[in-house]
Amino acid sequence: MKRTKVSTLLSTPALIGTEVEAKGWVRTRRGNKHVQFVQLNDGSTINNIQVVFDMNLFSEDQLKPLTTGSSLRVKGLLVESQGKGQTCEIQAKEFEVYGSADPLAYPLQKKGHTLEFLRDIAHLRPRTNTFGAVLRIRSALAFAIHKFFQEKGFYYLNTPLITASDAEGAGAMFQVTTLDVENPPRDEEGRVDYSADFFGKHTSLTVSGQLEGELGATALGEIYTFGPTFRAENSNTPRHLAEFWMIEPEMAFYDITDNMDLAEEFVKYCIKYALDNCADDIRFLEQMYDKGLTERLNFVVNNDFIRLSYGEGVKILEESGKKFEFPVHWGTDLQSEHERYLVEEHFKKPVILTDYPKEIKAFYMKQNEDGKTVRAMDVLFPHIGEIIGGSEREENYDKLMARIEELHIPMKDMWWYLDTRRFGTVPHSGFGLGFERLVLFVTGMTNIRDVIPFPRTPGKAEF
Amino acid sequence: MKRTKVSTLLSTPALIGTEVEAKGWVRTRRGNKHVQFVQLNDGSTINNIQVVFDMNLFSEDQLKPLTTGSSLRVKGLLVESQGKGQTCEIQAKEFEVYGSADPLAYPLQKKGHTLEFLRDIAHLRPRTNTFGAVLRIRSALAFAIHKFFQEKGFYYLNTPLITASDAEGAGAMFQVTTLDVENPPRDEEGRVDYSADFFGKHTSLTVSGQLEGELGATALGEIYTFGPTFRAENSNTPRHLAEFWMIEPEMAFYDITDNMDLAEEFVKYCIKYALDNCADDIRFLEQMYDKGLTERLNFVVNNDFIRLSYGEGVKILEESGKKFEFPVHWGTDLQSEHERYLVEEHFKKPVILTDYPKEIKAFYMKQNEDGKTVRAMDVLFPHIGEIIGGSEREENYDKLMARIEELHIPMKDMWWYLDTRRFGTVPHSGFGLGFERLVLFVTGMTNIRDVIPFPRTPGKAEF
Repeated sequence: MKRTKVSTLLSTPALIGTEVEAKGWVRTRRGNKHVQFVQLNDGSTINNIQVVFDMNLFSEDQLKPLTTGSSLRVKGLLVESQGKGQTCEIQAKEFEVYGSADPLAYPLQKKGHTLEFLRDIAHLRPRTNTFGAVLRIRSALAFAIHKFFQEKGFYYLNTPLITASDAEGAGAMFQVTTLDVENPPRDEEGRVDYSADFFGKHTSLTVSGQLEGELGATALGEIYTFGPTFRAENSNTPRHLAEFWMIEPEMAFYDITDNMDLAEEFVKYCIKYALDNCADDIRFLEQMYDKGLTERLNFVVNNDFIRLSYGEGVKILEESGKKFEFPVHWGTDLQSEHERYLVEEHFKKPVILTDYPKEIKAFYMKQNEDGKTVRAMDVLFPHIGEIIGGSEREENYDKLMARIEELHIPMKDMWWYLDTRRFGTVPHSGFGLGFERLVLFVTGMTNIRDVIPFPRTPGKAEF
Repeated sequence: MKRTKVSTLLSTPALIGTEVEAKGWVRTRRGNKHVQFVQLNDGSTINNIQVVFDMNLFSEDQLKPLTTGSSLRVKGLLVESQGKGQTCEIQAKEFEVYGSADPLAYPLQKKGHTLEFLRDIAHLRPRTNTFGAVLRIRSALAFAIHKFFQEKGFYYLNTPLITASDAEGAGAMFQVTTLDVENPPRDEEGRVDYSADFFGKHTSLTVSGQLEGELGATALGEIYTFGPTFRAENSNTPRHLAEFWMIEPEMAFYDITDNMDLAEEFVKYCIKYALDNCADDIRFLEQMYDKGLTERLNFVVNNDFIRLSYGEGVKILEESGKKFEFPVHWGTDLQSEHERYLVEEHFKKPVILTDYPKEIKAFYMKQNEDGKTVRAMDVLFPHIGEIIGGSEREENYDKLMARIEELHIPMKDMWWYLDTRRFGTVPHSGFGLGFERLVLFVTGMTNIRDVIPFPRTPGKAEF
């Protein structure tokens, strides 16, 4: 007999009255000597199916192994449920225990656990309601991202993870090596001889695929990356991971306005996809962690994003009369408190700021006529502040070179990137979205370690 | 005026007779003093749109910058084409050059280039027909993979890239570190002190996400990974990369037969998706590189895969009378020549071999009753041999432990993996597909360095 998933059993009225087989894990068992109820979950949905054991058919001994966390196969009649909140349930006819879970050893007993505790058992936490919900939403968002770009004719481009270049300067890097670190080969001057390393030179893990993304866009037109990136920063905060996933679209022939249009459409599409496809999981997280979750998601989906310049934004902040922890004036990098003030208090809408001072932005951003600002854009959200950062890119070879020299970026790392401006350069734009930021926003979780299956942070690389 | 992509211009008859704007790169320009023809490509398709310049409207000087590789914006009337093989063309009214491409410096002139040469300019090769086609097919295959699994209710799981465990033993690993390799901190015995490293211990880049995938499957039911994996093997062959992408589905409650069914359906779906969505690109590669390409793709899509045991396969090979480079008998690992003989000459169908000797397979595979074989499966294809490897997993704690001890796998790395067998263990299965193997098969390319944008191999980490 073919097993039916719990999600199907609960959503297919036509199955009621038929014999079905379910497989899954016991969440709870309760009852008396006449009847026992098992809540069975198989991961396909946050909802359990109730399995009813008529104790005239089964003995106490038979049911004894059905403790929380144990696994079984059960066959029986699917019937409409009498109980509140259940659509249907299985009247057990026969069952088989696959694996037990010793109640004294299995850490996920019925009682609630702190998120901190669950982080230490990240290998088991996907079995909880919370992490089941988060990981299903994460999966749906990942698919929404691919679907959005593919339907628009973008090509998925895999940029390299191991890189010999560190020109982007987005953060501290992890070194990748096959040298014997205990006793590396050394050259005549006693320095480590990287010509003996796997790639014949010093290599690191990438901090961004953007520069390679531009190579793709100036050939294929519109590309997006979606892959892991790394930062070796010793930041033990709820917002930082050493290993995280980034989405970086890059588009030939897009100016900053096209770029903003795309970013707004993109992020609304992803959130709407989650609302449409993960209703049960979002509802659970809303009830457990974040009462305003659905409202905040709809707030983003249903509002036009306000667009204004960094300068205008700073003026609003200066005139707000509000006391900020970090003082703000033209030239300062905005903090989360400033971004959230603009979004949550001033405009009451998501905001896109443009034309930032060039000093606080990357070398490759297109320089404005004023000589002071660049065509950067940051998309600001309630609750989390910046969710997307991007820009139109400087496509003029001479202007780009001047900026590279000004910032002393080593040319040896840049020749291939500059070729995009030497040969058939075009106006182009792109942006980056930290995937975990989006998952944080959509799940309402507050610690980034709780929205990736196996978080990597200083001192932590378990599992 | 809004730009229209070349792919849209060529496939939208309703646009004929209207004024359009195209943007792209010049592939070639030819003509005489009366009329000039530019082949314009924007990466959206392998096909160019022809732009016709009436030299009564333009001067030779104006058109001079339109060399191969230069970029422009052009506006004009879209008309049915007179020329052979063109559906429509643009009669230029006005144009603007974005960027030139000095014919003396730009390496991608009209003449053909060897794949070896193009590998050295991997930053520009996506601009060629060949790599445009390969990268568009690669993108389509990536999406097909997500679509297939998502539609089946699988959840996409991101397993970690940086890992402190090396239990899988699938190959040599790259070390990841933030220690100063010139002068690392040392403990009292003079050994490198990894407690001072970023993660407080020795870490490496993953060779497989499978073990973590099993953690996901025993919670969410059916998961798949799709991410980069790494092998620090000094193999300079057309089949090896140091950094490549893997797809690893893992399914609770699947036995080896379910696993084979899924693998066959999966790989057929992906190939069919490419045939349906990348017809122009596949046709180009077929003409240029591999006359039998479409036939081979249809061969896989249209045939039931033959299923037999390793033992039966070996018998066929032994009795074939064929002289193989590597002798074959029960117990040997099969070589590509053996696999291809079974597929191409004996069965003339794709083949799935099962029940391999346990000595040549991984520790986690389910042990058969015979004590000699395990429930492994390899999917074998024409042209390339093994494309998928998988197995039912050993779900019995004691049997798995015995194998781990037999193979001296360090327990310190295994406790979290073993917890899946301690708590609610279930029958489960999974397989792995090297993404570049699939792209090789579908594009007909013969060197794996030509199906990934920026290949990493010994001595090579450019761009």
